[in-house]
Amino acid sequence: MKIGKVLGNVVATVKTDSHRGLKLMVVQTLDERGEPHADPLIAVDCAHAGIGDIVLIVEEGGSAREVMQRPDGAVDAVIVGIIDYLNELKER
Amino acid sequence: MKIGKVLGNVVATVKTDSHRGLKLMVVQTLDERGEPHADPLIAVDCAHAGIGDIVLIVEEGGSAREVMQRPDGAVDAVIVGIIDYLNELKER
Amino acid sequence: MKIGKVLGNVVATVKTDSHRGLKLMVVQTLDERGEPHADPLIAVDCAHAGIGDIVLIVEEGGSAREVMQRPDGAVDAVIVGIIDYLNELKER
Amino acid sequence: MKIGKVLGNVVATVKTDSHRGLKLMVVQTLDERGEPHADPLIAVDCAHAGIGDIVLIVEEGGSAREVMQRPDGAVDAVIVGIIDYLNELKER
Amino acid sequence: MKIGKVLGNVVATVKTDSHRGLKLMVVQTLDERGEPHADPLIAVDCAHAGIGDIVLIVEEGGSAREVMQRPDGAVDAVIVGIIDYLNELKER
Repeated sequence: MKIGKVLGNVVATVKTDSHRGLKLMVVQTLDERGEPHADPLIAVDCAHAGIGDIVLIVEEGGSAREVMQRPDGAVDAVIVGIIDYLNELKER
Repeated sequence: MKIGKVLGNVVATVKTDSHRGLKLMVVQTLDERGEPHADPLIAVDCAHAGIGDIVLIVEEGGSAREVMQRPDGAVDAVIVGIIDYLNELKER
Repeated sequence: MKIGKVLGNVVATVKTDSHRGLKLMVVQTLDERGEPHADPLIAVDCAHAGIGDIVLIVEEGGSAREVMQRPDGAVDAVIVGIIDYLNELKER
Repeated sequence: MKIGKVLGNVVATVKTDSHRGLKLMVVQTLDERGEPHADPLIAVDCAHAGIGDIVLIVEEGGSAREVMQRPDGAVDAVIVGIIDYLNELKER
Repeated sequence: MKIGKVLGNVVATVKTDSHRGLKLMVVQTLDERGEPHADPLIAVDCAHAGIGDIVLIVEEGGSAREVMQRPDGAVDAVIVGIIDYLNELKER
């Protein structure tokens, strides 16, 4: 999994059925000190995250379908938690 | 998922049956500010995208087969939406 | 698989059911000489690892579900061993 | 998928049964302008490619097994087409 | 697949059942000219490789389980062959 910070929302009116009704968010991946690190990505929010939240991201199709409870889900990254505390990142 | 900009089309007359009839497009992946970022890739278009469109890309075989409704699909990246709005990229 | 050093724990009270009860750890991946290398990641501990341990990490959903014995697991990285000896890293 | 240029062949007499009889080729991945880009890789040829050809590569186990029609195939990259034309790469 | 050079062995006495009895090796991935390239990795040896051998590596869970004939295998990289000849690397 990865740690990331939610930067914003994505709106895509034209999309395949597999993506209707999904809340898409832009996430900047972070290293253990909370610094921007590697590629930004788009993830489906399954943990009621908001802009600015530090989140836990799983990047795997099977996991995404499981968390979304959508066997037909065509998603490769999901937000599965909001991080309260990380040794390196210290208390939020 | 990733954000990308469609650069062009790919024509490959010699190809395996699994790829017949698929619309292949070259996509430059972007960061949240719309800057070229990381590797360009080839994706199958499933959202009627055109050259210059900012698109949503899923990079996972299971998802690709699901979106294309082709259980025998041998594809690892599909375009699943056209992005209208992204906080960082502002209004298109 | 990858070699990594456990940096700390992750606490996320808000998370999906798929992640309840899992021990999440921050791991810095290492090269064969034990130097920090590439991205840090979050992995589920399945080998009773502690902070500072040099560990073996598998980054694959199917393997994670198998090791955790949780077919509904939505995890893409697990700690599966604690490394005693690595030629390059010499005796611990 | 990726674009690549075939550099040469690979000969490995000692190999597991899963790889017997497969034509292994070294491929340099390219960006949209045909410049060498990212890691070289080894792919199984399923499109009768030759040294110097610009090819289409799928990097996913499920797709590889489908294209090779070998459910027991242990391959993570296959050549599925020979590229005639790519906007950026212009006419070959 | 990738080309790599075997650097050494890994010993991990504390590990999950899924990894008991497996021969773990540290492999430095190489480019087509035999130069060290990208991340080192740990792979399960299925081709009787030794330290210094130039090997063929598959990085995919499904393939690993197939080659190891262990449906419960929790491994994401296996050595499947020893490379005798590679155009670029010339005669060994």
